[in-house]
Amino acid sequence: MESIRVALGSRAYPIHLGAGILERAELFAPHLRGTAAVVTNAVVAPLYGARVRKALEAAGARVVEIVVEDGERAKGWPTLERVFDGLLEARLGRDTTLIALGGGVVGDLAGFAAATYQRGVAFVQVPTTLLAQVDSSVGGKTAINHPRGKNMVGAFHQPVAVVSDVATLDTLPERELRAGLAEVIKHGAALDAAFFAWLEAHIGELLARERAALIHAVRRSCELKAAIVAEDERESGKRALLNLGHTFGHAIEAATGFGPWLHGEAVAAGMVFAAELSRRAGLLRPEDAQRLLDLIRRAGLPTRAPALAPARWHELMSLDKKSAGGRLRFVLLEGLGRARLPAGVDARLVDEVLLAAAQ
Amino acid sequence: MESIRVALGSRAYPIHLGAGILERAELFAPHLRGTAAVVTNAVVAPLYGARVRKALEAAGARVVEIVVEDGERAKGWPTLERVFDGLLEARLGRDTTLIALGGGVVGDLAGFAAATYQRGVAFVQVPTTLLAQVDSSVGGKTAINHPRGKNMVGAFHQPVAVVSDVATLDTLPERELRAGLAEVIKHGAALDAAFFAWLEAHIGELLARERAALIHAVRRSCELKAAIVAEDERESGKRALLNLGHTFGHAIEAATGFGPWLHGEAVAAGMVFAAELSRRAGLLRPEDAQRLLDLIRRAGLPTRAPALAPARWHELMSLDKKSAGGRLRFVLLEGLGRARLPAGVDARLVDEVLLAAAQ
Repeated sequence: MESIRVALGSRAYPIHLGAGILERAELFAPHLRGTAAVVTNAVVAPLYGARVRKALEAAGARVVEIVVEDGERAKGWPTLERVFDGLLEARLGRDTTLIALGGGVVGDLAGFAAATYQRGVAFVQVPTTLLAQVDSSVGGKTAINHPRGKNMVGAFHQPVAVVSDVATLDTLPERELRAGLAEVIKHGAALDAAFFAWLEAHIGELLARERAALIHAVRRSCELKAAIVAEDERESGKRALLNLGHTFGHAIEAATGFGPWLHGEAVAAGMVFAAELSRRAGLLRPEDAQRLLDLIRRAGLPTRAPALAPARWHELMSLDKKSAGGRLRFVLLEGLGRARLPAGVDARLVDEVLLAAAQ
Repeated sequence: MESIRVALGSRAYPIHLGAGILERAELFAPHLRGTAAVVTNAVVAPLYGARVRKALEAAGARVVEIVVEDGERAKGWPTLERVFDGLLEARLGRDTTLIALGGGVVGDLAGFAAATYQRGVAFVQVPTTLLAQVDSSVGGKTAINHPRGKNMVGAFHQPVAVVSDVATLDTLPERELRAGLAEVIKHGAALDAAFFAWLEAHIGELLARERAALIHAVRRSCELKAAIVAEDERESGKRALLNLGHTFGHAIEAATGFGPWLHGEAVAAGMVFAAELSRRAGLLRPEDAQRLLDLIRRAGLPTRAPALAPARWHELMSLDKKSAGGRLRFVLLEGLGRARLPAGVDARLVDEVLLAAAQ
């Protein structure tokens, strides 16, 4: 097992990374004060619920389990209210530790529950998808969706620890593995050319779920993201670079009603869009745009969005939290590993790429 | 006009205090970046909405107004969702400043909306009740109620400024003025014997709404609370002393379904309960318990709770956020101006006082 530290002053926390580690009571023990409330979903609970419960009980905690439905649909107020119902029914106080056992939806939902239950309790993330291990477990973003937009209601609330067990990826559906790889590719494309090259060389091993490759990919992703978050916890500056592919990606998710496209799939198509926009703006060399497109294709991820009129895309993108004062902001690439956030992008170029992207 | 500074490092903010100041654009201007979204209620909007809008527009902001219903019933998810609907319908981004114009309910609701809309936007409090001016405008506690308990879902989110205009108290119903005085009395009883004595001498002027007396009472209350909050923002220690009367007070509110008793009224009866418990525990001199009872009576506030069995009170109190590991915690008095939080209180004493309090 290895541990990465996310350096956030009084809110610093460790990410423990390895295979088979979610059974280890000593990873949970330092973070339990009374009851542990495990928030998980109907798919993950039968797979890993008992093992995590055993570890928590061995660490001395009373354990309460709250099982929500699987999927993005669970990431809304009705499900959050059921989590609060469960916590209040068990009469849990501020000394409760929430354990988020599952993928990004469970992490975001349970994290937001932890951020707001009695004005904030501690939580530990136990991510069981690649996406959650490389992305949502670092940075403290928690949220639920609103019918008018994704992640519109949320909070920054850091976990007290993350336990990332790559053995749980054995049970991950193929499509979700690929969706997780989209965020891994994003970390390379936005921040680290050498890591991008490593991914080009090892994409086959990752798709074959070779543990050493998975551990390296998760570790490097967490390191890259942790370094950014440590500099800019509240996304006022540099952290926005992590949104490569996300402005357009969120619009795809919104256009399709949150669900048909997995988040990582939408980000993949969003990155292709961002690379094409960067190329046409004269920032990115055509061969680098091609390398990104190729890697996304090899990962089995989509490269094109559904066909919609540019005006509709603009409308969907303008609701994105990253729009400032009504202006769209796009993260562009100046090269592989070199993302930047230009002040403005020529609207004509955006429309051209929108038309091309959705052919 | 005078200004008090709440010293919270990077989250420090000013409380501006005076008569007729909610029209002053320069108090809002430093805190506006784009749109100002005024959250207010159906009673306050016709009284002060236009004046605040004019000040915000003079400060250069676009103004959006979101009017919610009056009363404690508005402090729940359905109303919060309507606030989010209003913000999203107007396509407001992270550069929005929420303006909470109203009493404690509007402040708590709009504050929690500000804490969670797009993971947090700025907000300015413009409290128009005495309770909100002396209590909820200091300290950053925001929340909504859950059917199972008051303030169960919330966040710590500091305003960027507070504009406390005592002229707005001219339109405050008599009963709400008295309920606000309960928290003023609490600040004296818990923290400052000299202020308590000043209140004994000036309660008549306060009930007559004499502005100089009101300004002194609001200022001293804010100073006392601000000093505590600066030391203990997240209520891990000393801040709990401000909960004098609140464990039992919240139980009264819960027992009666949030509404029939105003918060301040419940706190008044809760303080009488706490004083009696302190007296029977041998901590508080009988004459000091009597002085507190007398002042609460002179303020026209209730001193007795509805009649309920001790077991039911225990049940209601154990749901309070201040219970830790299932143990009830009571703030007691060692003297006027000297609150303390003992580790435990004899359960037999509690039952005796519960029986006596609800005769």
